[in-house]
Amino acid sequence: MRSLIRPLVRRLHPYVPGEQPKIRGLIKLNTNENPYPPSPKVLAAIRAAVDGRLRLYPNPEAGRLRSRLAKFHGCAPENFIVGNGSDELLALATRAFVEPGLPVQFLTPSYSLYPVLADIQGARRNAVALAEAFALPSVSDLRKGGAWDFRAPLTFITTPNAPSGRGYETRDLEVLCRAQKGVVVLDEAYVDFARENAFSLAMRFPHVLVARTFSKAYSLCFLRVGYFAGNRGLIAALQKIRDSYNVNGLGQVAAEATLGDLPYYRRQIKRLIATRERLSGELRALGFQVLPSQSNFIFARPPAFPAGEWLRQLRARRVLVRWFKQPETRDFLRITVGTDAEADALLRAARGFLTG
Amino acid sequence: MRSLIRPLVRRLHPYVPGEQPKIRGLIKLNTNENPYPPSPKVLAAIRAAVDGRLRLYPNPEAGRLRSRLAKFHGCAPENFIVGNGSDELLALATRAFVEPGLPVQFLTPSYSLYPVLADIQGARRNAVALAEAFALPSVSDLRKGGAWDFRAPLTFITTPNAPSGRGYETRDLEVLCRAQKGVVVLDEAYVDFARENAFSLAMRFPHVLVARTFSKAYSLCFLRVGYFAGNRGLIAALQKIRDSYNVNGLGQVAAEATLGDLPYYRRQIKRLIATRERLSGELRALGFQVLPSQSNFIFARPPAFPAGEWLRQLRARRVLVRWFKQPETRDFLRITVGTDAEADALLRAARGFLTG
Repeated sequence: MRSLIRPLVRRLHPYVPGEQPKIRGLIKLNTNENPYPPSPKVLAAIRAAVDGRLRLYPNPEAGRLRSRLAKFHGCAPENFIVGNGSDELLALATRAFVEPGLPVQFLTPSYSLYPVLADIQGARRNAVALAEAFALPSVSDLRKGGAWDFRAPLTFITTPNAPSGRGYETRDLEVLCRAQKGVVVLDEAYVDFARENAFSLAMRFPHVLVARTFSKAYSLCFLRVGYFAGNRGLIAALQKIRDSYNVNGLGQVAAEATLGDLPYYRRQIKRLIATRERLSGELRALGFQVLPSQSNFIFARPPAFPAGEWLRQLRARRVLVRWFKQPETRDFLRITVGTDAEADALLRAARGFLTG
Repeated sequence: MRSLIRPLVRRLHPYVPGEQPKIRGLIKLNTNENPYPPSPKVLAAIRAAVDGRLRLYPNPEAGRLRSRLAKFHGCAPENFIVGNGSDELLALATRAFVEPGLPVQFLTPSYSLYPVLADIQGARRNAVALAEAFALPSVSDLRKGGAWDFRAPLTFITTPNAPSGRGYETRDLEVLCRAQKGVVVLDEAYVDFARENAFSLAMRFPHVLVARTFSKAYSLCFLRVGYFAGNRGLIAALQKIRDSYNVNGLGQVAAEATLGDLPYYRRQIKRLIATRERLSGELRALGFQVLPSQSNFIFARPPAFPAGEWLRQLRARRVLVRWFKQPETRDFLRITVGTDAEADALLRAARGFLTG
């Protein structure tokens, strides 16, 4: 049976998503989900679509959603491709732009899916370390370092960065994009929680794509809707290789309704940012070294005990956070910003462990 | 910009899905959707899941659904992978089992997606003609013919066949599977409308997978849920290369609820088959040459005028059917079996054109 499977696939180690615990009562601060529900209007729009029409295929081009995105962002529907979550589009990008053997490039630490996608495509991983404190390296530092490939056919930049939560400035991203010869995907999954976004770069540069998702700021993880924006030619190439009905119909309905009720989401984002800043301050008071975050999570080095021990102790106190055991991240915990009550529960658990 | 895209992708012609018309009042018999809605229990289960939990990721392994499938089919959850429609899984199979340059094999005419998937993978298409009247060729005929590759790493067999609607017997499929060295996917998208299915072959042969979908018999096109069943090793290989959250949560909820209300679907399937047989008879009376169908569509050679002209004339009478203009199918129309009222509308339109 083994011989039926491509050697490349036999060798793969799959991506491990954050735990979706089956235990009730756990406070789930491990997968950066939004603590607030979708807007009541969005829930109503979905419910109104749940009838006999489920028997029909959804719009294969997500036409109405792309038109709304075009209106919202001030460009054309042809500048958008919608995916079954932005994960699908990240995978499509490796298949559209990277010949097997050539590099998929990314900074580390960042989204741990990129090396998995590189491996699946039979591409070479080119993982280059971020600068001190997870800063974006300057182009001249990248040139000096020698490891960065300015001709890589595909480069992923997570901005704001995950897991550090650090935001990058558009002008710095622009300098990097200008220096890059291949396709650059600015993965803005968390950008709605940041001070600025780099959407304009995808409209100005033919080789730059911006990735967005309805999962995080728009509370629709369950329905799998993300999109890429950019040059029509690049978008058309991705359209050619996607599954014909890649975006489920209720996801399209939900995303369209979301764009019709943005003030609701702006309010929740504001609340979440307020909780983030308060939680950051209180964790610092407990001795955590907290990086400034522009996302819906906090990356913090806990005091007194190793981060892995913190993970276990917080879990024992029914609070689930995430720990990446790679060398550059193993001293930190990644903590999703939940509601104020969830933040308080985390703080109580942390105090309990420290004083316990 | 063109040079940023892989030459393989630049050369691709995308799959063209059946038209999803925006005109109201059209009778849509072109994409083999089920005319009956999902069961009221399924609709209720979906509605009950539309709340704040949409903010959470769905089960990444579709664990509960796979357990229910295992119980239903009498095997283990590890024998199943669930996909964003079975289309996603067909694509994954090309990527897991076929090195670029090697053949993806299929019979023609069959599902027009297979050659597209072969092209996307950079594989070679090995398209071999079905026997007379769209019958499954015997292994000895395939050996004599010389075009069939018994060592092809991946072979797709649509059973019942689309677009002909012809059903194949499990014992004939078994002989073919035995002769085949590579992976065989028995694509049973329409099997719920047939007299028999070949599920047992996927449990008996380590190189045979069966593809199923909730789209057709279970009226859930909109939500995109399909699955493969087969050997754990093959299934595990596919699991490694899928997107981590590939099946949207409401799709999982709907498919689970569907398995809890199968008597409802058996009744609708029985109704549909009765309509199919009546429609076949009445079309024959009008001079159509109707192939015996074991699916939810009819493949028929219309009288008096070319099939392409029939397509246009029926559309002018607000009935949409499908026409594939390839040489082996161009004399036929593929007509989805709708409700009795839709069948009557089609018959009226056909009589109108013939006598008009």
